[in-house]
Amino acid sequence: MLLKVRDLNIHTGGPLIAIIYSKDADQMDIHYGDRILLKHNNHKAIAVADITHNKNTIRPGIIGLMEELENKLNAKTGAMVRISIIPKPESTRIIKKKMSGKRLSYKEFLMVIEEIVHNHLTESELAAFVTACFIHDLTNNEVVSLCKAMVVTGETLKFKRKPIMDVHCIGGVPGNRTTPIIVSIIAAAGLLIPKTSSRAITSPSGTADTVETMANVSLDIKKLKRVVMKTGGAMVWGGALNLAPADDKIIRVEHPLNIDAEGQMIASVMAKKFAVGSTHLLLDIPIGGTAKVRNVREATKLRKRFEYVSKSLGIKTRIIFTDGSEPIGNGIGPALEAWDIIKVIKNDKDAPRDLREKSLVMAGIMLEMVSKAKPGRGYELACGILDSGRALKKFTQILNAQGRSPRRMLKLGKHVRIYYASKSGKIAFIDARALSQIAKAAGAPKDTGAGVYIHHHLKESVKWGDPLITVYAQSTEKLHHASEVAKFPALFRIN
Amino acid sequence: MLLKVRDLNIHTGGPLIAIIYSKDADQMDIHYGDRILLKHNNHKAIAVADITHNKNTIRPGIIGLMEELENKLNAKTGAMVRISIIPKPESTRIIKKKMSGKRLSYKEFLMVIEEIVHNHLTESELAAFVTACFIHDLTNNEVVSLCKAMVVTGETLKFKRKPIMDVHCIGGVPGNRTTPIIVSIIAAAGLLIPKTSSRAITSPSGTADTVETMANVSLDIKKLKRVVMKTGGAMVWGGALNLAPADDKIIRVEHPLNIDAEGQMIASVMAKKFAVGSTHLLLDIPIGGTAKVRNVREATKLRKRFEYVSKSLGIKTRIIFTDGSEPIGNGIGPALEAWDIIKVIKNDKDAPRDLREKSLVMAGIMLEMVSKAKPGRGYELACGILDSGRALKKFTQILNAQGRSPRRMLKLGKHVRIYYASKSGKIAFIDARALSQIAKAAGAPKDTGAGVYIHHHLKESVKWGDPLITVYAQSTEKLHHASEVAKFPALFRIN
Repeated sequence: MLLKVRDLNIHTGGPLIAIIYSKDADQMDIHYGDRILLKHNNHKAIAVADITHNKNTIRPGIIGLMEELENKLNAKTGAMVRISIIPKPESTRIIKKKMSGKRLSYKEFLMVIEEIVHNHLTESELAAFVTACFIHDLTNNEVVSLCKAMVVTGETLKFKRKPIMDVHCIGGVPGNRTTPIIVSIIAAAGLLIPKTSSRAITSPSGTADTVETMANVSLDIKKLKRVVMKTGGAMVWGGALNLAPADDKIIRVEHPLNIDAEGQMIASVMAKKFAVGSTHLLLDIPIGGTAKVRNVREATKLRKRFEYVSKSLGIKTRIIFTDGSEPIGNGIGPALEAWDIIKVIKNDKDAPRDLREKSLVMAGIMLEMVSKAKPGRGYELACGILDSGRALKKFTQILNAQGRSPRRMLKLGKHVRIYYASKSGKIAFIDARALSQIAKAAGAPKDTGAGVYIHHHLKESVKWGDPLITVYAQSTEKLHHASEVAKFPALFRIN
Repeated sequence: MLLKVRDLNIHTGGPLIAIIYSKDADQMDIHYGDRILLKHNNHKAIAVADITHNKNTIRPGIIGLMEELENKLNAKTGAMVRISIIPKPESTRIIKKKMSGKRLSYKEFLMVIEEIVHNHLTESELAAFVTACFIHDLTNNEVVSLCKAMVVTGETLKFKRKPIMDVHCIGGVPGNRTTPIIVSIIAAAGLLIPKTSSRAITSPSGTADTVETMANVSLDIKKLKRVVMKTGGAMVWGGALNLAPADDKIIRVEHPLNIDAEGQMIASVMAKKFAVGSTHLLLDIPIGGTAKVRNVREATKLRKRFEYVSKSLGIKTRIIFTDGSEPIGNGIGPALEAWDIIKVIKNDKDAPRDLREKSLVMAGIMLEMVSKAKPGRGYELACGILDSGRALKKFTQILNAQGRSPRRMLKLGKHVRIYYASKSGKIAFIDARALSQIAKAAGAPKDTGAGVYIHHHLKESVKWGDPLITVYAQSTEKLHHASEVAKFPALFRIN
């Protein structure tokens, strides 16, 4: 059947959708969700049919095309396209198989992932896949298969030199910005470390957001390679690289469903490492009541799975458990976190000791992993690189190679409110999650200068009237928002 | 934040969606799939946010509204609407609970069903709910809860007179149109039977499609009540009545996912019965290799569940197993099936005996269920009503009350092709599913006169050259389509 195009001027960013009037659909026996093949001159595209009963949307004889489809077909309003119905993609059968609790092979995952990448699955089908993988959690072998399938359907990075170092933290701890410090030390030691990070989804800042206050993080794969070849290191936003693109599309559905499937998470993390060719990975699992992993039992279970998957992918992985009971460093929010990092790298005397310490321990382990340092001597070597100023030099070199950000991004918000201790004593508890919410209410991460500065940490003694936190915002309105979220005294428990 | 409306002129028929430009969404910390509250003058609506990064779709400062939202807000292009973010509906927490395998209460089902009816769930959330209910199949108590929740959120029918008779068949057998015959007999016996039926989804005809060749089936609830009060019976399309509207929305997602969850199916069937106030139900489960239920074991399991749910809903239900190994009657397709029905009701001598027999047996059981006939005497009474012409009189009365369809809908397709037996012998197998496909390829159910007429049934003897089936179509093109689907000799096995 020939239908006349109506350009809907809508960009879905997802499934390729064409809207047909119900009577026309009936004629062709096309149902909602069916796959149709569209042809226009020499252009072809597969779309998912949406059916409307409303002539105001699409009149009989007309087909409404979302922008992506229009571009694929090179068909503007008024063009005639030929429509035919085609069978459902094989991937829908595979999704059904997963629903019924069966295991999927690499080939099957690849089929589904390819359809996801090409936007051939409907929103419902993708949601059903994600739900089924959550309910019947993936086996370790399935995680490996999913991981590989996500990598081969995206961009990859290759270096002739080995080893390729990498580091990752299973999030949930505010201010935990060891990455730029570790990258600087490891690259200064002569190793390659093309580190990709994510932006915040629900937190007040992701590593990519923090680094962006200092340098451009949206590099494509070629530019990234050039930076790493030149400096040994990089700290960029993974999202710009099209590594494992199916992962972003899966997370886009997982997030509103509030699904946090363990197998899917492991595949997501390891795919990014595999795609950049990492040979050695240090994985940090912080444990704490408000962190992603709550206790040692959970952490141990997760470690086993990561070890299995790493081994199968040929990545040498060391996994450490760290303290996730309170924020690391003093700042929460992009610029505030950046200042913590700068102070540590510059060896400022008021640099946050916990951030320095954690970065040195982790960099030390990494240096030992590839025998840059003898067993037990990694920390010492890392310390030397940091204290001698070699890390700072490397840090500057990397930022310059990526391209510096405008200085204003590092400026803190002008509107400030300080919260003081209402009694004297020892700090027994800090609600890290609540601090994140205050920073977000103050405008982080969009307002790079917004956030929370923590004056005192767990187990420190404070006197009545000592400052506990300072909130920075770029408008009085947002400062007010933040103050509404700040619930004292529950936020800091002083005994 | 205030945004200016752009009318997208698209009617989704489903979730209420508003599209916002990414930077604006960032400002308000709105993510894809978040719920937003829109206000315009005194109008309010809750919508699901879709985010675009493409200025061609939605420019900064603009909000794109699907037609349903525009109507709810009474806001045309250029109007200003105030946007604020609101928490996710409670139902998303409940969906997550079902995903993790826990049971849901009536109150929880009601919350989800209400959100479904009001289009407050996204396509993904609905798909996740359906997937979770499929994977962790519902318990019988959950089926009862879901059923009640679907009924209270839709229209219901109430009569002062009791009993209210009903009959239902768990589909899959082509041509199985006992309903109009049973309704006529039962109503002629002085009982109330407001029978609702469905249209074809993937089959060549649903009962509603078949009846529509003779009478109007799209009645609203008031009109239906009037017809039943006047004649005692009705045979209408359930879809026009808004009974259990959530069910249609669930099926709309289930169907493309090819999900056929047993619990959901039972709730769907029983909700329609409960909504029209049925007190007595005869449920027919045909068993056959190509029917929905394949063997006695499956049928027995299903019977137990239906019995439990019926009892909880206070509906007296009798369940029978029937032969689903071959089509019932001679015609497959709306008009062809209607002619079978008419012949049976008129006592024509070439009326299909199997259709007559099955209808009489079922009507007989129903008459015994409410003591209109003594045990064992129901068949006899039904037979008397049919043979005396009282059923025909009632049938005509009901069709007239519903409003007659144009005569042309009963006309058979002009283009005909007959298939003959290629050898002599006894018919050992008829592929009912393949016959349905031929009827569909010929144009059924849209072309009401299209379909397949079966000349010989299972176990009958045929000679070389005897006609086996006649295919009717309204164009040579469709007749050709049908002939491509007709795969002889596999279709009829003659031994």
